[in-house]
Amino acid sequence: MAENGKATHLVGVDLGGTKILAGVFDAKYECLARIKISTKPERGPEGVIERVARCVRDVVDESDLTLKEIRGIGIGAPGAVNTEEGRVIFAPNLSWKDVPLKKALEKELEVPVFLENDCKLHTMGVFDAELKGKVKHLIGIFLGTGVGAGIIIDGKLYTGFNGSAGEVGHMVIDIDGPECGCGNRGCFEALASRRAIFRTIQSAVKKGQETLLVDMLGKDLADMRSGDIRKALRRGDRFVEKVIEQAAEYTGIAVGNLINLFNPEVIVLGGGIIEQLEHEMLPVIEKVAKAHALPGTTKGIEIMATRLGDDAGITGGAVLAMRSTK
Amino acid sequence: MAENGKATHLVGVDLGGTKILAGVFDAKYECLARIKISTKPERGPEGVIERVARCVRDVVDESDLTLKEIRGIGIGAPGAVNTEEGRVIFAPNLSWKDVPLKKALEKELEVPVFLENDCKLHTMGVFDAELKGKVKHLIGIFLGTGVGAGIIIDGKLYTGFNGSAGEVGHMVIDIDGPECGCGNRGCFEALASRRAIFRTIQSAVKKGQETLLVDMLGKDLADMRSGDIRKALRRGDRFVEKVIEQAAEYTGIAVGNLINLFNPEVIVLGGGIIEQLEHEMLPVIEKVAKAHALPGTTKGIEIMATRLGDDAGITGGAVLAMRSTK
Repeated sequence: MAENGKATHLVGVDLGGTKILAGVFDAKYECLARIKISTKPERGPEGVIERVARCVRDVVDESDLTLKEIRGIGIGAPGAVNTEEGRVIFAPNLSWKDVPLKKALEKELEVPVFLENDCKLHTMGVFDAELKGKVKHLIGIFLGTGVGAGIIIDGKLYTGFNGSAGEVGHMVIDIDGPECGCGNRGCFEALASRRAIFRTIQSAVKKGQETLLVDMLGKDLADMRSGDIRKALRRGDRFVEKVIEQAAEYTGIAVGNLINLFNPEVIVLGGGIIEQLEHEMLPVIEKVAKAHALPGTTKGIEIMATRLGDDAGITGGAVLAMRSTK
Repeated sequence: MAENGKATHLVGVDLGGTKILAGVFDAKYECLARIKISTKPERGPEGVIERVARCVRDVVDESDLTLKEIRGIGIGAPGAVNTEEGRVIFAPNLSWKDVPLKKALEKELEVPVFLENDCKLHTMGVFDAELKGKVKHLIGIFLGTGVGAGIIIDGKLYTGFNGSAGEVGHMVIDIDGPECGCGNRGCFEALASRRAIFRTIQSAVKKGQETLLVDMLGKDLADMRSGDIRKALRRGDRFVEKVIEQAAEYTGIAVGNLINLFNPEVIVLGGGIIEQLEHEMLPVIEKVAKAHALPGTTKGIEIMATRLGDDAGITGGAVLAMRSTK
């Protein structure tokens, strides 16, 4: 791959199951432009890759630059990736299996491309751009459709022996808990992800539970979103309040476990659920986590929500591109 | 502290609640001599420190060396320690709070002393002396009265922000599980430690459960040891078999969680419970752990029992002394 050694700008791409978000950043991780288009995974890997390439071209043009001025492109994919070969091994939300994303994009754009799992990329974004690399050990936890995470140890992304470290969502915290997509029971993801929260609400409604959500969305709760949960909560829906409090308690136990295991300096929470419900959930998470961590071990440890919001992915992409081309 | 720069031998000390074990090692971690005496914690920190010093002097003499030929002494204490200052912060089994162990021993012996938590020291012993440092990421889990652990990342002991990383025993895996000494419910330690296993057996016996253990030890099961459990098991006690299988399943879930989180190359199990019951427990632990780790993530990962046995602590002490005086 031709290197654009003198180029100073970076592109970050957040490739999700429903949308592609791309942003152009300068060397200080200031975002100059961003463009969002839908993913259309039904068009298959080739179709999606073509859309990613177009989105990158458009956002570079939007910021009045050319691809020659782009030092590197960092892209996050929702699933298991082989970072060295730049292959997406398995991404259920895209229906992808073993897609050579890096190679295809480099051929298309002639700029070095670097691939990482999306939540690991989010964590890198928070670490370098939001916290300015000032902490040594950081864990990022992202509550969305599922639960993803990234672990930074000694300032570097920790990936373990097979590259799969950080699967926080599949830490069992309740042996007899609900079944998880992975086949086991009581994983953190099966208790506190958007999917878990929605399932709890839907099954209660089926059993006759009253909630404002039914008035808002109809009895089948079609197209329920995290924002709807927030609306119902703020209008005083006691049932929804209880469900969210429970999810926050599970998250607090998971965070407490992670403090006992990793004793990181900072735990950052993000993802759609936290973006919408930070106000309600963060105080509960913090309280429960500190009650579950061993006495004295949380001194100086911060539990916070990221301020990067939707931009965590593209910022992390820029960070990855910067780190990889240094 | 005067350094014994030219000295080539090392002393490892395992300071437990009931016994003090000290060993002399050469630079290849071959043990030349070992001496064991009782701790007598009722004599208070000063009395115990005097006994540790005597045990070290005796074992050095036993190996026909003098203290001048000892490069350093590594000592493991059962509790929270401040390694930099060499203080035992809190060790419930010794009834110690904030004891300046390093300083007191150095004054007594005039050899550099290095302090670490006992299970972290065991893990260092396994890593350097048993596995010859050939793996990058290792987790050691020790099932004894409680559950302790050590985490090695990139060949170095990982201790986190406050030095408390690796508190594997207080990872909650069963929210509604039995109460733990830490005040929470369903910690790994409350489910699979010797204390937890004994409590399960004792409470069942109180409710009328029949077991060979009652024939062996009387109805109050006085002085029950891990070895008694093994005897009952091997004589075909179905109840004890079930209790141990359950503890192995809990351990398997904990190990599965650790693989999902840390993805280490090797997980080593040790401690009194494993020493006595490896044959019965290890196959269950391995099976359950692999069923709980995400598909594909256990490839090449080894789950094994340490062969160091009782010597894990003193070997780790020698490793710590060697690493600290290099």
